[in-house]
Amino acid sequence: MLKRGFGLLKGSLLQARLHLRREMAKSKFEYVRDFEVQDTCLQNCWVVVRVDGRNFHRFSEQHKFTKPNDPRALLLMNHCAKNVMEEIKDICLAYGQSDEYSFIFHKKSNWYKRRASKFMTHVVSQFASSYVFYWNEFFPEQPILYPPGFDGRVVLYPSVQNLKDYLSWRQADCHINNLYNTVFWALVQKGGLTPAQAQDRLKGTLAGDKNEILFSEFNINYNKEPVMCRKGSIIIWNKVNEIRKKLIKLPHEAEEKEVEVCRVRNQPVILHCDIISDTFWEDHPDVLSSES
Amino acid sequence: MLKRGFGLLKGSLLQARLHLRREMAKSKFEYVRDFEVQDTCLQNCWVVVRVDGRNFHRFSEQHKFTKPNDPRALLLMNHCAKNVMEEIKDICLAYGQSDEYSFIFHKKSNWYKRRASKFMTHVVSQFASSYVFYWNEFFPEQPILYPPGFDGRVVLYPSVQNLKDYLSWRQADCHINNLYNTVFWALVQKGGLTPAQAQDRLKGTLAGDKNEILFSEFNINYNKEPVMCRKGSIIIWNKVNEIRKKLIKLPHEAEEKEVEVCRVRNQPVILHCDIISDTFWEDHPDVLSSES
Amino acid sequence: MLKRGFGLLKGSLLQARLHLRREMAKSKFEYVRDFEVQDTCLQNCWVVVRVDGRNFHRFSEQHKFTKPNDPRALLLMNHCAKNVMEEIKDICLAYGQSDEYSFIFHKKSNWYKRRASKFMTHVVSQFASSYVFYWNEFFPEQPILYPPGFDGRVVLYPSVQNLKDYLSWRQADCHINNLYNTVFWALVQKGGLTPAQAQDRLKGTLAGDKNEILFSEFNINYNKEPVMCRKGSIIIWNKVNEIRKKLIKLPHEAEEKEVEVCRVRNQPVILHCDIISDTFWEDHPDVLSSES
Amino acid sequence: MLKRGFGLLKGSLLQARLHLRREMAKSKFEYVRDFEVQDTCLQNCWVVVRVDGRNFHRFSEQHKFTKPNDPRALLLMNHCAKNVMEEIKDICLAYGQSDEYSFIFHKKSNWYKRRASKFMTHVVSQFASSYVFYWNEFFPEQPILYPPGFDGRVVLYPSVQNLKDYLSWRQADCHINNLYNTVFWALVQKGGLTPAQAQDRLKGTLAGDKNEILFSEFNINYNKEPVMCRKGSIIIWNKVNEIRKKLIKLPHEAEEKEVEVCRVRNQPVILHCDIISDTFWEDHPDVLSSES
Repeated sequence: MLKRGFGLLKGSLLQARLHLRREMAKSKFEYVRDFEVQDTCLQNCWVVVRVDGRNFHRFSEQHKFTKPNDPRALLLMNHCAKNVMEEIKDICLAYGQSDEYSFIFHKKSNWYKRRASKFMTHVVSQFASSYVFYWNEFFPEQPILYPPGFDGRVVLYPSVQNLKDYLSWRQADCHINNLYNTVFWALVQKGGLTPAQAQDRLKGTLAGDKNEILFSEFNINYNKEPVMCRKGSIIIWNKVNEIRKKLIKLPHEAEEKEVEVCRVRNQPVILHCDIISDTFWEDHPDVLSSES
Repeated sequence: MLKRGFGLLKGSLLQARLHLRREMAKSKFEYVRDFEVQDTCLQNCWVVVRVDGRNFHRFSEQHKFTKPNDPRALLLMNHCAKNVMEEIKDICLAYGQSDEYSFIFHKKSNWYKRRASKFMTHVVSQFASSYVFYWNEFFPEQPILYPPGFDGRVVLYPSVQNLKDYLSWRQADCHINNLYNTVFWALVQKGGLTPAQAQDRLKGTLAGDKNEILFSEFNINYNKEPVMCRKGSIIIWNKVNEIRKKLIKLPHEAEEKEVEVCRVRNQPVILHCDIISDTFWEDHPDVLSSES
Repeated sequence: MLKRGFGLLKGSLLQARLHLRREMAKSKFEYVRDFEVQDTCLQNCWVVVRVDGRNFHRFSEQHKFTKPNDPRALLLMNHCAKNVMEEIKDICLAYGQSDEYSFIFHKKSNWYKRRASKFMTHVVSQFASSYVFYWNEFFPEQPILYPPGFDGRVVLYPSVQNLKDYLSWRQADCHINNLYNTVFWALVQKGGLTPAQAQDRLKGTLAGDKNEILFSEFNINYNKEPVMCRKGSIIIWNKVNEIRKKLIKLPHEAEEKEVEVCRVRNQPVILHCDIISDTFWEDHPDVLSSES
Repeated sequence: MLKRGFGLLKGSLLQARLHLRREMAKSKFEYVRDFEVQDTCLQNCWVVVRVDGRNFHRFSEQHKFTKPNDPRALLLMNHCAKNVMEEIKDICLAYGQSDEYSFIFHKKSNWYKRRASKFMTHVVSQFASSYVFYWNEFFPEQPILYPPGFDGRVVLYPSVQNLKDYLSWRQADCHINNLYNTVFWALVQKGGLTPAQAQDRLKGTLAGDKNEILFSEFNINYNKEPVMCRKGSIIIWNKVNEIRKKLIKLPHEAEEKEVEVCRVRNQPVILHCDIISDTFWEDHPDVLSSES
């Protein structure tokens, strides 16, 4: 320090004082932390985080999604949801359809002290970054043109029945929209109607009428349409036995030896089935249990 | 339909009934919407959304970020923040440092009816998808290995002074961390200390001591370090004159003619300067005005 | 009006303008209503409002409450709680001890759209005004010296088990405090100890030790102490047949005749019993049912 | 204890075990406390608690309030509000009209850590108990028939202007209602109209029309009506010099001597004036200052 001469010393002292002032400044400003509010989710409630694509109507057109459904887009959504679950193990079930995905945190979860903002922002950001990251795997011939946005929300459900009704609500919504879209696009693509004419034609029709149009005019049996489009996608954890080779030295042996070890691992699996009736819950009793 | 025979007809009627039941089911389940709660941000308050990288310590190591700062990473963060601002025009200022970015919504903003969940999830998801989308531009030689996560939060500030103090708090934090990291990595990379030894050496030192170590031992004048690292990055809107060529048919002329038209456009610009002293606010009086 | 002359007319016009300005002013100021926030209680949760006396230590001394319990004070609390229930029929159960009372709103209640502030302020204000109103009935010889304050809070419980555990928590608290107070005041009033000595004596004692002191030193069998003090008070609704005389004119008779009509009416009744074990809930299955 | 014999001993041991179980039980149930949520009011905001009479239309009829205003009722409201302010010193201003009162907590107040439920329940319960307590002072000839209820709410205002606008809103409301009621009851009481006829007559009239009716038909100059009814009541703190006699022993004197000591004390005072124009705030600059 002595080598730096007087001028520098003066500057350096000034500097030191300025820096000290900064450090004090930080503590002086730190009061602003008290403006953060606690947003803890009520204990013992199921926490649903629903993610929705932002302006996906425009996004799907610009990326030439096929109509009424683009399987590539649905498979990409499913892949992103699996990635979210692998990053956030407290999610016990996810349900997706169209451009939305719902993630269920177990009612006993204490992840990030149950802060609602943590739940929704972690899920939505992981989903969004995955969407771009995995895009090429699912759309190898269609480059992604710009980074898409998503919105998210948190909803609490006190009882298992409320939670099941929530999922039923989303699946019923999937059914209604998909049936409508299937007929609509059949009328446009195969029936030669304009979109406005197709819309007019469908005004006031019930599910039965739509099935009828599909069958009698286009020879489409709606029930034979892809189940992923009709029912959406459910992701649950599945225990799998993973066999890995490992070098182990047994006590009575001189050298390490390669042995196969078996480990039970939780893996997200995707199902396309009805979740409105009781069958699903009877078939998968562990999904909502606290051990899972 | 008649051609399908009795069996099919029966099936089809059953089907129609099932579908009708579904439609009724949807409305039966719709009560679950009442569990959503309003999370409106208090009127006339500045809304800050802060985004933080999740596990970015690990992420930066796996992607070989240079230490103490990787300019590529900082520039990518800035680019993502600009993208967020272009998508969400109600943001009047953003401030970023290290792996965090704060976005300020104007106190008069009524974007999505000021719902906190909309503010934070839109910002964080747009930021996350941009991060992956623009990665290659900034890290052309280092592929991104997995989709990163971010968290987000909303904090309200009733007065301009509170808001300025919030930004000062973040910039003071930037300064303290960056000074520390600069010395720490000098001691490790150039001084040959282990990380533990460097940490020990810095225990209890004040800003002045750290400047002194940098200067006397490594001939580094901290004030000459890149300003982006020392001050972080501020993004504000800037009015620019955009000149475009346009075909116009003037009333008294027979044909269209190409003319140059000038349009004022708002563009995000990045600054690296002090926001703790009043100078910044005096130099940019429009930043927090309601017109901007 | 014409008679009032020009001066007055002018004044009156001015007045009219002023008044008009006021009316416009009101709508100009009405924006402040948007600052109110929705505080809806989550659907399908039990809503507990707990009322606590403010500074009741001081209040009980100034009004010469007998120690360890003043039955007059407990009976007044019970009477106020009954009054609250009669005013707010959506309360399905109340539990009180010492200077606190908890009121349970049914999970299906939609009273005032489940707004938390309505729940707590109506209960606490009704309780407070009743306390002064009925004071003389219970303390005929001791005038009330000043208006007492109470505080209130709202807590939500998603499951019946959570709710029962809440009530058990309050009753266990009643037991622990009352046992302590009974021994403490025996030591002071009969044993001649100073309060400090009594406190010292009780430090570290368990329930068994306290029972032992009571029995061996003061010949008090704690279990024979008044059950209202040991268990607190539970208020539930009870259906009673009310017989009233009414004047009725039967079709085939010429004149009105007095007849007795029987009406089923819900009435709050007070119990002093254990609510920790299942017996209470088995004995009163209707208390938490939605019909009650 | 030995005297009690074996049977008793056994009973006592059982008892001790039961009590121990109770104590453990309490801690077992204590998890229910985690269901309470933080309801902190945002820092640096003005906190308004507004109290409203519940069913006061019915209450005022049953207690024979004079129409359009009963001064006894207004004075009782004012007295209760003063009592609230004396109990809760962090209130810097109160404004009342008709059956409502607003209490302003200073934006810097940290009373009960700014918990909204504490603010509203303390205010509303103190108001309610005062109402019954002081009733006889203001209605000596009219006994109070039943304990009245009140509701309360909390609203936050970030800026002084918002707060002033809130108060202006309430005073404009007072003016509009009082003018209407004055004409309405003049038409009924002096003009011989039925309430329905009076309502019809007033439909669509502006302030000027109402003044005109009052003056030309009933010779009432509305501006000469009691200012308390026209403007409502404002309560602020006023510093008063309080002179008290005290026994003091001065150092150079042998005996205690009675001297008069002067102490500055804060006292709530009631004003009836305009708070919409700036005059009030210019005349009372201390009301919203942080020292007051």
